[in-house]
Amino acid sequence: MKMGFIGLGSMGSEMARNLIKAGHELTVYNRTRSRAEPFAALGARIADRPSEAARDVDAVITMLADDRAVEAVVFGADGIMDSLKEGNAHICMSTISVALSRRLKEAHRERRQHYVAAPVFGRPEAAAAAKLFIVAAGPSQQVQQCQPLFDAMGQRTFNAGEDAPAAHVIKITGNFLISTVIESLAESFALVRKSGVDPNLFLEIMTNSLFTAPVYKTYGALVAAQKFEKVGFKLPLGLKDNRLVMAAAEDAAVPMPMASLIRDRFITAIAQGLSEADWSAISSVSFREAGL
Amino acid sequence: MKMGFIGLGSMGSEMARNLIKAGHELTVYNRTRSRAEPFAALGARIADRPSEAARDVDAVITMLADDRAVEAVVFGADGIMDSLKEGNAHICMSTISVALSRRLKEAHRERRQHYVAAPVFGRPEAAAAAKLFIVAAGPSQQVQQCQPLFDAMGQRTFNAGEDAPAAHVIKITGNFLISTVIESLAESFALVRKSGVDPNLFLEIMTNSLFTAPVYKTYGALVAAQKFEKVGFKLPLGLKDNRLVMAAAEDAAVPMPMASLIRDRFITAIAQGLSEADWSAISSVSFREAGL
Amino acid sequence: MKMGFIGLGSMGSEMARNLIKAGHELTVYNRTRSRAEPFAALGARIADRPSEAARDVDAVITMLADDRAVEAVVFGADGIMDSLKEGNAHICMSTISVALSRRLKEAHRERRQHYVAAPVFGRPEAAAAAKLFIVAAGPSQQVQQCQPLFDAMGQRTFNAGEDAPAAHVIKITGNFLISTVIESLAESFALVRKSGVDPNLFLEIMTNSLFTAPVYKTYGALVAAQKFEKVGFKLPLGLKDNRLVMAAAEDAAVPMPMASLIRDRFITAIAQGLSEADWSAISSVSFREAGL
Amino acid sequence: MKMGFIGLGSMGSEMARNLIKAGHELTVYNRTRSRAEPFAALGARIADRPSEAARDVDAVITMLADDRAVEAVVFGADGIMDSLKEGNAHICMSTISVALSRRLKEAHRERRQHYVAAPVFGRPEAAAAAKLFIVAAGPSQQVQQCQPLFDAMGQRTFNAGEDAPAAHVIKITGNFLISTVIESLAESFALVRKSGVDPNLFLEIMTNSLFTAPVYKTYGALVAAQKFEKVGFKLPLGLKDNRLVMAAAEDAAVPMPMASLIRDRFITAIAQGLSEADWSAISSVSFREAGL
Repeated sequence: MKMGFIGLGSMGSEMARNLIKAGHELTVYNRTRSRAEPFAALGARIADRPSEAARDVDAVITMLADDRAVEAVVFGADGIMDSLKEGNAHICMSTISVALSRRLKEAHRERRQHYVAAPVFGRPEAAAAAKLFIVAAGPSQQVQQCQPLFDAMGQRTFNAGEDAPAAHVIKITGNFLISTVIESLAESFALVRKSGVDPNLFLEIMTNSLFTAPVYKTYGALVAAQKFEKVGFKLPLGLKDNRLVMAAAEDAAVPMPMASLIRDRFITAIAQGLSEADWSAISSVSFREAGL
Repeated sequence: MKMGFIGLGSMGSEMARNLIKAGHELTVYNRTRSRAEPFAALGARIADRPSEAARDVDAVITMLADDRAVEAVVFGADGIMDSLKEGNAHICMSTISVALSRRLKEAHRERRQHYVAAPVFGRPEAAAAAKLFIVAAGPSQQVQQCQPLFDAMGQRTFNAGEDAPAAHVIKITGNFLISTVIESLAESFALVRKSGVDPNLFLEIMTNSLFTAPVYKTYGALVAAQKFEKVGFKLPLGLKDNRLVMAAAEDAAVPMPMASLIRDRFITAIAQGLSEADWSAISSVSFREAGL
Repeated sequence: MKMGFIGLGSMGSEMARNLIKAGHELTVYNRTRSRAEPFAALGARIADRPSEAARDVDAVITMLADDRAVEAVVFGADGIMDSLKEGNAHICMSTISVALSRRLKEAHRERRQHYVAAPVFGRPEAAAAAKLFIVAAGPSQQVQQCQPLFDAMGQRTFNAGEDAPAAHVIKITGNFLISTVIESLAESFALVRKSGVDPNLFLEIMTNSLFTAPVYKTYGALVAAQKFEKVGFKLPLGLKDNRLVMAAAEDAAVPMPMASLIRDRFITAIAQGLSEADWSAISSVSFREAGL
Repeated sequence: MKMGFIGLGSMGSEMARNLIKAGHELTVYNRTRSRAEPFAALGARIADRPSEAARDVDAVITMLADDRAVEAVVFGADGIMDSLKEGNAHICMSTISVALSRRLKEAHRERRQHYVAAPVFGRPEAAAAAKLFIVAAGPSQQVQQCQPLFDAMGQRTFNAGEDAPAAHVIKITGNFLISTVIESLAESFALVRKSGVDPNLFLEIMTNSLFTAPVYKTYGALVAAQKFEKVGFKLPLGLKDNRLVMAAAEDAAVPMPMASLIRDRFITAIAQGLSEADWSAISSVSFREAGL
């Protein structure tokens, strides 16, 4: 397919690379142009502004850091809103607020464009290995047409129905679940360690019995080692995602005390100078509080 | 082996049955004798008091509901403390406090008896199917000798080292982890439901991507359905286990805010009349608070 | 003094009335003009747009519901920004975010206008009785010149220094303190009631010993009676103020777990249909959870 | 009156001294006898065991550190249970659990002795100055007879009805309220300080407007100064009182999330080496978390 691709950060650049590898024809745009340039050698066209990346393509993908970035690229001057043709689709793979996802759905509908929400689970390594999990929602025909794209980037796509924002609800709630795993392991490890048990032993037993999920293995290893320099997902981005779930919960009038607790962990971690660390560093708060 | 087995509740009776099936010779004791009687037909000897179940056996297993029950059976009148021979082992498979586990270790040591802690993960169905996960700790020779017993009752045994109470640390911390899964799913489902997404869809996506662990599948299904009449583990027992982790954490000076939050869920659930429900019913608090 | 007064809600209308009573000459503005009209009979001039209320006056007071309202009136079309003369003051008595207060300080400085922050403590009855507590901060000369105005509206003015936004920091933190009183009384009353003690007896003992402060008497009576129809301060406004303190705390990297807990109370109360009640109705969450 | 007085700690010794000063005839008992000896010079008789302090007196007062101490002195060997005459009263002024207070009521009733619960609010300075607040409950005739005693020790007595344990419900709930004040001030001061406002200025404004209660002044000064060496009430005793309120709340099925939060603060403070500090040192947790 002829695709626009906007946002070449640590996730987006891997995803774009996999699309090219699978034979798709890309026009790429990145605010900082230097990150886009290597893609010329791979055969991609480099756009000077977002609108160009959405012109003369079958669809345009956005993979950006937050609401503000998506708003700028969609609704801003030279945004994709005006250049995207009627009947073409904007595939939003960024993790954005449910509120913005709803607004995008509405805005595209008014212009007879299509809107597919397709946020992803997975860290940069998974993106590089085309092992992302993709949650897609939107008009079923469009979602179906996107399947070859998703196959090029992920290991599995889940269909979340016709209402695009549902995919973002699922994504941010899923991220909340991950954050609860980090916090629960942090508290557990602090307890076992101060009770004379090696956290790695505890983790090994858990991940070979009831907690066999990848998320416990990946984060368990990070939390047990208390090493957070290698950054898969920066701590302030974790706070951003926490903000998204708390905003959605407030809009829907759903109290989420675990999300509140984790928010306080993020803020404490930032107060203690961990803004550059991986988000699993919120676990260090439990360790410090326990005097470890 | 010639074994004593004390405690024939919903877990213990299945475990004892599996030991007999595997060819071990049992003397069983249960406070309410009627629960012991069916075992006569299976070839077990029925003891009239705990001490009898620990006499003339290679080792004695206790599988009881709480600290109080274990204390009564071990230290009480006609307890096993006096009848168990020097060099023989008490295998404590109950979920008890770390403090009591430490006290048992000391008391048995003084009488030159052995103490093996071997608590289990799994609900009654898993006990019946000999699919328990067993965490064993204690003197390595004794733990090794117990392996055929564990093989008859569980699908896998984890060795947690020479210090018996470590097994109980791991067990109660593991139960804490399970409780965090229930609460995190409860909050998640309340949010997705009020945001227009079917909790079952959310659960299916999660358990087929990052959260493939049995614990998410088992409890996810219960929480999504909000059906708690079929009781695998009664709610007040969940509060008891929460108490165990909070006591261990207080002793070790480890703050565990998630455990505190979950304690409040248990108490709320009890205040709202859910004492007879499965412990996953603490999830109904999130649903009620959200107005669902 | 010749004063502009913008915002004639339940607080502002009482405050404006007291200024007129004290002999000040007012030009009033309210978005919904009908609320302004009664002031003509009191001798006030009625402005058609915010800018008019800031023209040909010594200073202009804004007493509005939230950030959005203040931004509209200050920075919007026909806002006060352009009509206020150099050297004249904007006295912001609304409870707004620290961030907006900082922005106002900067914006007025650039135009050589003065900015005084003077938020108030007190419910509408206190405003009517000129019994407000006023926390004023800003350039000392301007704050001093405002004193006769403050004396007409309040029982006491506190000087919070030269940095105007400090007054808003104090105001929103003070509101947080009040919210903690409501929640702590709610939990206390639920406990004493279920333990067989009359909450009113408990309250009487507390407010005649260690807790002699008005805030315990006022809110204690409301919480004990669980009557929230008479609305001094609407529940969603309480959530708004909670949002202000949580935003300030996030900006300053200060975790505030009590504020988080109270946020969840507000959201629960809204989910349970209490949006029209007084904000002390968050106490009903504790009562419901306890099964009362 | 002829009185027994058991428990001459930092509170009890001041209270006993005030009783002697008021002309009452005392027989005193303290486990560590050296603390009792100075009372001989004041004319008191020194008992060698608790039972002696309850013999040949009109009533006996106990003022001890915790449940265990009261149980030992009442039910233990040489306890007061056997020596106290029918019709005489045990006046329990210690802060004990509601459960123990209920048990004492029952036990004394069975022996036709009277039981008056009369716990106190106030730190050692208040005890020395006879400025305690006393909450008394029990049979009205006995409570009335105790009035001269209470007048000698306190500035005011509150009557909490005929059911003695109600006084302990009120006392431990009152202590919970105090702990919420410490925590709310800690969070507030951390916020204002990191926002550039002097906590003392904030405190002065609060305690001169809505928060005029002594408890805000006393603890506000301690928390603002972050000086905890002068110990009025030791931190682990604060945790003990928190345990009492949480136990009462669990028994009554009342979730108290603020009490849970404060429990975690105590445990964190202990993990960070503050066991010898005044209980207001739990406020340092908020300061540390905020990076102050």
